[in-house]
Amino acid sequence: MFARVDHIGVAVEDLDAAIALHEEAYGMAVAHREVVEEQGVEAVLLDVGENHVELLRPLDSETPVGRFLSKRGPGLHHLCFEVEGLERTLAALQAAGVRLIDAAPRQGAHGRRIAFVHPESCGGVLIELSERG
Amino acid sequence: MFARVDHIGVAVEDLDAAIALHEEAYGMAVAHREVVEEQGVEAVLLDVGENHVELLRPLDSETPVGRFLSKRGPGLHHLCFEVEGLERTLAALQAAGVRLIDAAPRQGAHGRRIAFVHPESCGGVLIELSERG
Repeated sequence: MFARVDHIGVAVEDLDAAIALHEEAYGMAVAHREVVEEQGVEAVLLDVGENHVELLRPLDSETPVGRFLSKRGPGLHHLCFEVEGLERTLAALQAAGVRLIDAAPRQGAHGRRIAFVHPESCGGVLIELSERG
Repeated sequence: MFARVDHIGVAVEDLDAAIALHEEAYGMAVAHREVVEEQGVEAVLLDVGENHVELLRPLDSETPVGRFLSKRGPGLHHLCFEVEGLERTLAALQAAGVRLIDAAPRQGAHGRRIAFVHPESCGGVLIELSERG
C-alpha cells in the first residue's frame, strides 16, 4: 500500500539557516521552493537519494506548523509516503480503523494530491500520503 | 556527503501493535529484528521502497529512547542517512561547526558502522549517519 518514502518533513524556525545547513554541511541540493498558503507554510524540497527532505517554515504562529514549533520546537514533523490509488488507500485505512485527517485528497505542494492521516492512529507519527498529480 | 536516507527511526511503546500497523495497514514487510543492548533498544526494520522504517522499543525507561518516550511520547525519533566515508564525513561536519554525539564510528544495529550527530546543530533533528559494514 505504501510504495515508498516521498519526503521527511522538518519544521524550521530559520529557513535560510536550515537551507544553508542542508546544502553546505549535508551536501543536498534544493529542488523546489513554494509558499503553500492553504497549509500556511513555505516549503523547500531538497534532494537526497530517491527521497527528499522538506523544510517547513510556518507563515505565522497560528498555523499547524506554527503551533507545532511553539509546542515542540524545530525538528521532525511528518513522514510522507507515496501511494498508488490515494482514494483506495484512504478507504482501506479507514476500514482498518485508522483515523484520517483528510477523508478525501486535497491539493498539496509540488503538484501532488495528498491526504494526512491522524498521528493518534499512527503511533504518534503524522503521516502524509501523496500521489503523483 | 549524505548519499541517501537509510531509515526513519520511530519510538514506540507497544512494539507488537506497531509492527501490526506497519504490516497490515501500511503493507510493509519486516526485514530484520534485533536487540541492540548498547543502545538499549529492540529495533525492527521494515522495508518501504529503497528505505526502511525502524521501530524502536526501549529495553527500559532509563535508556535514551525510554527518556524520549517519557518526555515526548511515541513518534518520529531520528533520521538515518547513509554516507560513504563515515570518518571523513564526521571530520567535515566537525570542521563546519556541527556538534557530534559520536566523534568516532561505533557498531550499530544491522551490522552497520554508525555515528550520531547532535540535534542542537541539526535544527532539532537527531541524525544518525551509517556506512555499510
